Amino acid sequence: MQYGMAFIEHITPDESLIRRMGRVLVSGKTPFQEYCLFESGGFGKVLMLDAEVQSTERDEYIYHEALVHPAMLAHPDPRDVLVVGGGEGATLREVLKHPTVQRAVMVDIDEELVRVAREWLEPWHQGAFEDPRTELHFADARAWLAASEDRFDVIVLDLTDPVGEENPAKMLYTREFYELLRARLNPGGVVVTQGGMLLLDRYQVHTVLHRTMREVFRHVRSYRDWVPGFFLTYGFIVAADGFDPSAYSEGVLEARILERQLKLRHLDAPFIEAMFVLPKDLKGWIAEETLISTDARPFYLTHEGEARVAGRSPYAD
Amino acid sequence: MQYGMAFIEHITPDESLIRRMGRVLVSGKTPFQEYCLFESGGFGKVLMLDAEVQSTERDEYIYHEALVHPAMLAHPDPRDVLVVGGGEGATLREVLKHPTVQRAVMVDIDEELVRVAREWLEPWHQGAFEDPRTELHFADARAWLAASEDRFDVIVLDLTDPVGEENPAKMLYTREFYELLRARLNPGGVVVTQGGMLLLDRYQVHTVLHRTMREVFRHVRSYRDWVPGFFLTYGFIVAADGFDPSAYSEGVLEARILERQLKLRHLDAPFIEAMFVLPKDLKGWIAEETLISTDARPFYLTHEGEARVAGRSPYAD
Amino acid sequence: MQYGMAFIEHITPDESLIRRMGRVLVSGKTPFQEYCLFESGGFGKVLMLDAEVQSTERDEYIYHEALVHPAMLAHPDPRDVLVVGGGEGATLREVLKHPTVQRAVMVDIDEELVRVAREWLEPWHQGAFEDPRTELHFADARAWLAASEDRFDVIVLDLTDPVGEENPAKMLYTREFYELLRARLNPGGVVVTQGGMLLLDRYQVHTVLHRTMREVFRHVRSYRDWVPGFFLTYGFIVAADGFDPSAYSEGVLEARILERQLKLRHLDAPFIEAMFVLPKDLKGWIAEETLISTDARPFYLTHEGEARVAGRSPYAD
Amino acid sequence: MQYGMAFIEHITPDESLIRRMGRVLVSGKTPFQEYCLFESGGFGKVLMLDAEVQSTERDEYIYHEALVHPAMLAHPDPRDVLVVGGGEGATLREVLKHPTVQRAVMVDIDEELVRVAREWLEPWHQGAFEDPRTELHFADARAWLAASEDRFDVIVLDLTDPVGEENPAKMLYTREFYELLRARLNPGGVVVTQGGMLLLDRYQVHTVLHRTMREVFRHVRSYRDWVPGFFLTYGFIVAADGFDPSAYSEGVLEARILERQLKLRHLDAPFIEAMFVLPKDLKGWIAEETLISTDARPFYLTHEGEARVAGRSPYAD
Repeated sequence: MQYGMAFIEHITPDESLIRRMGRVLVSGKTPFQEYCLFESGGFGKVLMLDAEVQSTERDEYIYHEALVHPAMLAHPDPRDVLVVGGGEGATLREVLKHPTVQRAVMVDIDEELVRVAREWLEPWHQGAFEDPRTELHFADARAWLAASEDRFDVIVLDLTDPVGEENPAKMLYTREFYELLRARLNPGGVVVTQGGMLLLDRYQVHTVLHRTMREVFRHVRSYRDWVPGFFLTYGFIVAADGFDPSAYSEGVLEARILERQLKLRHLDAPFIEAMFVLPKDLKGWIAEETLISTDARPFYLTHEGEARVAGRSPYAD
Repeated sequence: MQYGMAFIEHITPDESLIRRMGRVLVSGKTPFQEYCLFESGGFGKVLMLDAEVQSTERDEYIYHEALVHPAMLAHPDPRDVLVVGGGEGATLREVLKHPTVQRAVMVDIDEELVRVAREWLEPWHQGAFEDPRTELHFADARAWLAASEDRFDVIVLDLTDPVGEENPAKMLYTREFYELLRARLNPGGVVVTQGGMLLLDRYQVHTVLHRTMREVFRHVRSYRDWVPGFFLTYGFIVAADGFDPSAYSEGVLEARILERQLKLRHLDAPFIEAMFVLPKDLKGWIAEETLISTDARPFYLTHEGEARVAGRSPYAD
Repeated sequence: MQYGMAFIEHITPDESLIRRMGRVLVSGKTPFQEYCLFESGGFGKVLMLDAEVQSTERDEYIYHEALVHPAMLAHPDPRDVLVVGGGEGATLREVLKHPTVQRAVMVDIDEELVRVAREWLEPWHQGAFEDPRTELHFADARAWLAASEDRFDVIVLDLTDPVGEENPAKMLYTREFYELLRARLNPGGVVVTQGGMLLLDRYQVHTVLHRTMREVFRHVRSYRDWVPGFFLTYGFIVAADGFDPSAYSEGVLEARILERQLKLRHLDAPFIEAMFVLPKDLKGWIAEETLISTDARPFYLTHEGEARVAGRSPYAD
Repeated sequence: MQYGMAFIEHITPDESLIRRMGRVLVSGKTPFQEYCLFESGGFGKVLMLDAEVQSTERDEYIYHEALVHPAMLAHPDPRDVLVVGGGEGATLREVLKHPTVQRAVMVDIDEELVRVAREWLEPWHQGAFEDPRTELHFADARAWLAASEDRFDVIVLDLTDPVGEENPAKMLYTREFYELLRARLNPGGVVVTQGGMLLLDRYQVHTVLHRTMREVFRHVRSYRDWVPGFFLTYGFIVAADGFDPSAYSEGVLEARILERQLKLRHLDAPFIEAMFVLPKDLKGWIAEETLISTDARPFYLTHEGEARVAGRSPYAD
């Protein structure tokens, strides 16, 4: 281990990661979060938000391709797309790769962070904020959706985990929020969300999210991918009413990738299909989950990693 | 992060992991390595060898199932099995789950570590060392194989990575070593090896190993799995001459799992199949590799993570 | 920095020390504290209590000589000596070096820790617990003193800092406690206590202690010494009624050291005198302190290092 | 311990300090060293050079007063003063406080660092670089002195420790260098140097320096002070030919402080006197040192803290 600047990152209450830092490019505090962008040895620039890595220059394509394309490819003709969160602009960038898209609305609460991203994160957004199809709103996503009458073909949720009792993000993980999303989908619409880390038995964000979405959508499917820059495998969940968004054959996926002329670095049709095949233990943990997050009793994780609703363990009720 | 005892683990030259330690159960130094077994919060007992995690009580089943069963299930009737390394006894334990096995030979260089394992790692070996089918040898695996005339249906290599110029393990990753293994296989035999971490562009152990094995075996297939206790996705490589060991259908795998009444926690037939489906970027890195590790110019990684043969960068030749 | 076992120690809320650990000799938890004894590179065996270093084998003589001898040498004929705390037995060992001592009473709350010390800390106690002049009591020191009618020539307080609102040690730093001590002194008696770290403006344990003792004793004098194993300079305070315990000339100190045939490694007469000469800034901080710790409003430090009485900042009243 | 940016600082090969970092104000690399200036909780701005703390905003007055004034006060009328090193400008600032000074020459090898200091370290230099008595030279001090015929009343050496075999600073710690300094002193002149950390038996920089200076100067005296921001007690050495620079009585010191109207925060006459009184163990270690650093066999410390001359242990000859 070398001496000098380092970033000490929370992974679990028992494990932390020390990342050696090169030059700090920019750091500061918005009304919503602290941010720090620094150079690293193996991952290029690293963006930290509130002491957790958000994404790294060299591997962000993995997370963002995995988040966006399974849902976008499941839809035969995604024209109107909503991105919630995703301040770096890379989720938007992946959405805009689909030539079917006519309107890409991004709603993020943190205007200042997006301003920092525009200036400093060009490798992430690659100009996506300037695309004529892009429409930016700085607002609480839930309030914005409640006030809007817009309908979307695909909604991509790129949110931080609901960690901390005071974290307003926990209201973006409840049954009522998913009901609101469902009401904003066009017929045949698809929702996808990042779904928390999958670390042995520290997976409750994923399983509660899965269970809660099952209350609202007919088809809910989990998939997962290894994100090197997080040193974690992350879960994702895709949901729809009209059809099973994971049921497409390799042939259909391959045809759509070709038709839309998508340039992908990490995904191809067989791998998209394989991401949905979960190991046996994880399938069991998802199946056994009983907790539904609701506005009255929203689910969150404590900073120590314990699952909670309304201040209590949800499994003790 | 909490104060107190911690284990600072090398992951890459730029990233380290701090694991909070509970009680140290046993620690010491054999002629070959330092070891330390301690209690942890999320992973139960953790076994460190030479400052890198070897396995953890609560997730070791993932690594050991992933290492052993794809090869064992690819063989229709594995009777004679060789395990090289694997001092904890868990690889042996998984091998012995197959009722077809009549003889399980384990060759490990470190007798003292196996003695420690027998006493302290019961959750790992679960009595495998006492199974009447087990035959233990404490020897350098290459010398032992050269001197032996035994033939095996499956050979499982559970070795440490070839890190450090002086590390003798690098001679267990060369073409000549694989030729020796091939000569010790029965017709229809299968070899499987752990294949290094897959961390963005820090994957050379995997790609060089894959490329080198291709020189020797007709069919060489990579697969991968997420190992939570390592905070890494690990590669594995299975090789055979008579048939493609990854080409079995879910149906065949499922039938063999049932026939052999295997109790698996992590693997099932669909997931075994899916592990072999690699992301596009990784397929490219494997395909582009040109380096072959040979006895004359054995491949190794420096402690700084640089690929080397004979002290030089192998790609500059 | 090297990989492997490390002890991460709280120094301030902003600075921590990472000590590389060799073998753990013993670790555990008594009803009062967690302990861990491990081997280190530069300091020999290191004893940690509740994640702070208590003392190290190779430099403990510095702390213990500095704590004990200025008070013992200030007294012309210390016969009855009380040690409060000091579980390792090294304070007792230094007291017993004075041939004038006829009775050395040690009161420590933690019987189990003393048992561990007897077994594992021979370099510290060097048999002091077995000295026929030694009398051990396992009790809360304040309760024991209140119940006892014994009188002492020197009282040595070797206590942990009053950190944490719930820490009962804070009741051993109040005016009423010092009044109790004063009542247990023979005429001409002397009290000495460790007096907290002196780290720029993180010195409140020292200044409040000094100020509080001034309420009770006529002569109160601070001195300080650098304790390498703590990576800190520590304060000490000696108090008496009959005479100024720091006013002895080098000549008198030297004569008493010779008379008592003290074998000292760190102290000699000129250095004892010099320890009492404080830098100008520290003299100012001591002089400016106004806070008196009382049973009704006992002083303590929060774990974040903030000074508090009854849950509030003492300087805001 | 909190998550986020941290500076991991080498103290010894076995102990490191983690300093929590606030905002990074400036960082970079000159031809001679890496630098980083960041905000901290307890010490204000912290300046790191090559991963070791150089000084902190809130406690730098301690180190710089201790380095400069004992030598300056030992001289009855210091007019021409040379500062070697001391890029922050604080040593120069303390020198210039003496109204007797007519010319203060500072020679530092690192022009870029001084440029950074002028811009960012105002609390350190406080305009000293602009004082009309100041004369700045950017050069190797030894070459500059060899080429110059100037004579000085006081020379202050504010150099980094001779760590690393390739470190050119080791040539500023040899007998021949001190002979050159001696030749550049006016009659009655005084030299003072920082003298390395005093950490139990990791004190060789100090003792070798002391021993080497004894070869050149008639009077060589060590003193020491606790530097909170280093978490270390540091040694200093003052040397002269005409008189013992530590032999002044408190009265004389006090008179000179008054005459020169020095505003000091840390030092006063009694404390200056007391700094020269060393503990018994340290006096012994200094007396036992036999090694003399010479141009032919210059002394240095390895990065692991081992004493070396010409690549070998100096005590094995």
